[in-house]
Amino acid sequence: MERYYIQFVSLGPGDPDLITLAAYKALQKCDLIYYPTTVSPSGKTVSKAEEIMLANGIDTTKFRPYSLPMSMDRTKALAVYEEVASRCKAHYDEGLSVAVAAEGDAGFYSSTHYISDVLLREGCPFVFIAGVPAFIAAGAVAGQSITRQDEELQIIPGNATPEKLCEAMAQGRTVLIMKLSRCESVVKEFLSKENVAAIYFEYVGTDKEFISSCIEEDILPRRFPYFSMLRLKPKQQ
Amino acid sequence: MERYYIQFVSLGPGDPDLITLAAYKALQKCDLIYYPTTVSPSGKTVSKAEEIMLANGIDTTKFRPYSLPMSMDRTKALAVYEEVASRCKAHYDEGLSVAVAAEGDAGFYSSTHYISDVLLREGCPFVFIAGVPAFIAAGAVAGQSITRQDEELQIIPGNATPEKLCEAMAQGRTVLIMKLSRCESVVKEFLSKENVAAIYFEYVGTDKEFISSCIEEDILPRRFPYFSMLRLKPKQQ
Repeated sequence: MERYYIQFVSLGPGDPDLITLAAYKALQKCDLIYYPTTVSPSGKTVSKAEEIMLANGIDTTKFRPYSLPMSMDRTKALAVYEEVASRCKAHYDEGLSVAVAAEGDAGFYSSTHYISDVLLREGCPFVFIAGVPAFIAAGAVAGQSITRQDEELQIIPGNATPEKLCEAMAQGRTVLIMKLSRCESVVKEFLSKENVAAIYFEYVGTDKEFISSCIEEDILPRRFPYFSMLRLKPKQQ
Repeated sequence: MERYYIQFVSLGPGDPDLITLAAYKALQKCDLIYYPTTVSPSGKTVSKAEEIMLANGIDTTKFRPYSLPMSMDRTKALAVYEEVASRCKAHYDEGLSVAVAAEGDAGFYSSTHYISDVLLREGCPFVFIAGVPAFIAAGAVAGQSITRQDEELQIIPGNATPEKLCEAMAQGRTVLIMKLSRCESVVKEFLSKENVAAIYFEYVGTDKEFISSCIEEDILPRRFPYFSMLRLKPKQQ
C-alpha cells in the first residue's frame, strides 16, 4: 500500500491569490483536508482557512473542519489537536493523503505545531509547505519595505513589555508586535510616551483591512482586535 | 491611455512552486519583467529570479535582465537601480505594464527598495505582491516550526556582534542570522564558546541545499556562503 506524508499546507494571509502554487497543488491532489474553525461571539462559525480554500475552488467533499474552542484555558484546544493528529495518523495508516491547512505560514506562530508534535512522537512522517506570513503581506499592503539592508527586526507575539520595547528602540531595531489584543494597554502607553514611528495593521488582506500611521488620531483611540499588528521604528530612522 | 501600476513581484525562495498565484498571474499578464542577474567569479551570468520564471514557463520575450555589479562599493549598483527605475517610469508613461521581480519577498531585505524609492520620488505609482521569504522556507525544509507561541524572533541581516547574540540568548529570544558570510568569524567564535542550539541552512530550495544542526562536525568547519542562515536558540528551550 502506498503511504503519503501528511502535509502541513500554508494558505497565506487571507487573499486567496497569496497561496503558493505548491499549496494549491497539494490541496487539489490530497484526499482530505483538516482545518480550524471557530465560533464567533455571535454564534457564527467562522474559518479564514475555509474561505481561502473555497475561493480557490478546492473540492469541499475533502473538507474536514475541526472546531477550536476560544478560551484562555488551552486544555480543550489541546485535546482537539490530539484528536486531529490521531485521525491524521489513522488516515496515514489507511494510505490516504492528508493535508492539514493553516492560515499564514504553518511553521510561523501557527498552532498546527501541536499536531505535528504528536505526529513526530508517533513516528508518522510529515512535511511542511511554506507560505506567506501575515506580516509580510502587511508590508506589501502598506507599499513599504518591512526591513532594509542592515535593519534588524524583532518580532514580538503579543507579549510586549515596556522594557522590551524601550530596549529595542534604543538598539535601533525595527519591532513588529503581533496579536496586539494581548498587550493593548502596554502598547498604547508606550506609544503615548515615546517618540517612535508606527504603522498599525488590522485584518490585512480582508474586507475589514485598516492601516494607519496616525498615532493620536487612529491608533490610540482604537480597540485592538487579535488580528492586528504594529510596526515600530525609532523616529530618527 | 490606460496606465498600470508598476508591480514589485515576489518570486519566493527558489523552488518554482513556492511562487504565489498572485505573482504567477502578474508575470503572465504584464508586458515586461525587470530582474537582477550577477556575474559569478567564474564569469558565468547567474540569476535565481530568471530560473524561477523559466521553470514557471513565463514568456522570455518579456525578460529585461539588469546586471548587478558584485562589489562592496555600492555606487555602481545604485546607478543600475536608478537606470532601472528610470526605464520603468518611461514604460509607465508609455502605458506598458511593468513587473520588477525579486527573489524571496520584495519587501523583506530586498534591494528592489532602491527602485521603489526612486519611483516614489518621481510620483510613479507601484504595488507590492507579497511572497515567501527564504527564512520561512528554511523552517519548512527543516520540518520545524520556526517560532511558536510566545517565542520572540530577532532577525539579524549579517551584522551580528557578540553583544547582540549574548543579549538575545539571555532574553530567551530565537535569533535568525542571515547573510552569514558577512559575520562568519563572529558567529563561529560565538558557537564555539556558548551553549546554544543551532540549525544551519545553506542554499535552501536549490540543488545545493545543505542543513545541519551539528555545530562541531558540520557548522564550524564550513565556509559560509552569502546565501546561508543560522537559527540560534538558548539551549534550555
